[in-house]
Amino acid sequence: MSPLAVRNPYDNADDDDARSGEGDDGPSVVDRPLLTEIDHVAIAVHDLGDAIDTYRETFGAVVEHREVVESDGVEEALLRVAESYVQLLTPTSEDSPVAKYLERKGEGVHHIAYRVESCAEALAAVKAQGHAVIDEEPRPGSRGTTVAFIHPKAICGTLIELVEE
Amino acid sequence: MSPLAVRNPYDNADDDDARSGEGDDGPSVVDRPLLTEIDHVAIAVHDLGDAIDTYRETFGAVVEHREVVESDGVEEALLRVAESYVQLLTPTSEDSPVAKYLERKGEGVHHIAYRVESCAEALAAVKAQGHAVIDEEPRPGSRGTTVAFIHPKAICGTLIELVEE
Repeated sequence: MSPLAVRNPYDNADDDDARSGEGDDGPSVVDRPLLTEIDHVAIAVHDLGDAIDTYRETFGAVVEHREVVESDGVEEALLRVAESYVQLLTPTSEDSPVAKYLERKGEGVHHIAYRVESCAEALAAVKAQGHAVIDEEPRPGSRGTTVAFIHPKAICGTLIELVEE
Repeated sequence: MSPLAVRNPYDNADDDDARSGEGDDGPSVVDRPLLTEIDHVAIAVHDLGDAIDTYRETFGAVVEHREVVESDGVEEALLRVAESYVQLLTPTSEDSPVAKYLERKGEGVHHIAYRVESCAEALAAVKAQGHAVIDEEPRPGSRGTTVAFIHPKAICGTLIELVEE
């Protein structure tokens, strides 16, 4: 029941910034968390308009940004929740990964996106731990962000996106 | 591509607070969003220790709170990300809903929790829209919170928890 404050060694030696030996808790201690915000929770939906209506009518959530991302075969609507977003996501083509997701699993949480200071640095940390990634290099995302996806089998069955604003 | 600011009518007439007709945009306009923060993203995992290690070693994320919630048959570890948490969740018994989830789907995102000012008010808004709920009334959650779960089939296939701190 009691809160547990833990600060642990960071055993990733080949990170390229001054991470090791610079922490205020001694050598090999991570000096800051890499995840600075839950950027968004992405929900795959069949009908973007219906989903937007549901969130608006039920929770008073409104669309702050809407964008077609042709390269990913999706249209997204971002509903702001504090510094984060709910991202409603629908496929724009039949061969979109989100179309395949909907076909296989139905509507639901498609991925979790974490904001990071540097997408390249966070992606390097993921790869240094031996985790499989979908994007070997950071690439452009929506809203002018830089993003990279980690393989869903890598970290607790969760498709994770790293987002640098 | 252009941001889209939308403010829409709120057609929920039987809400019990002074919602209708009080907005600064005219009658029947929601005056504030009910979701004030992504409280946590809950990830169902087989081994809590392994999952904590993975998040720490990869992202420098550390446990801020750990708790067994006997009534839900789970043990949870909360890793802080800004004002939100990643909640790693593992069953403490075979008949826990999370045990069944893991058996059926494997590790992954179990639910999304939104922080609200009043759990009772948000739950009433959900029910007023005709959405099925799991908890008919708010109940105690972990960390001394008050919570209620909405049925996963109700809102875009997502198991949603409302959390009042």
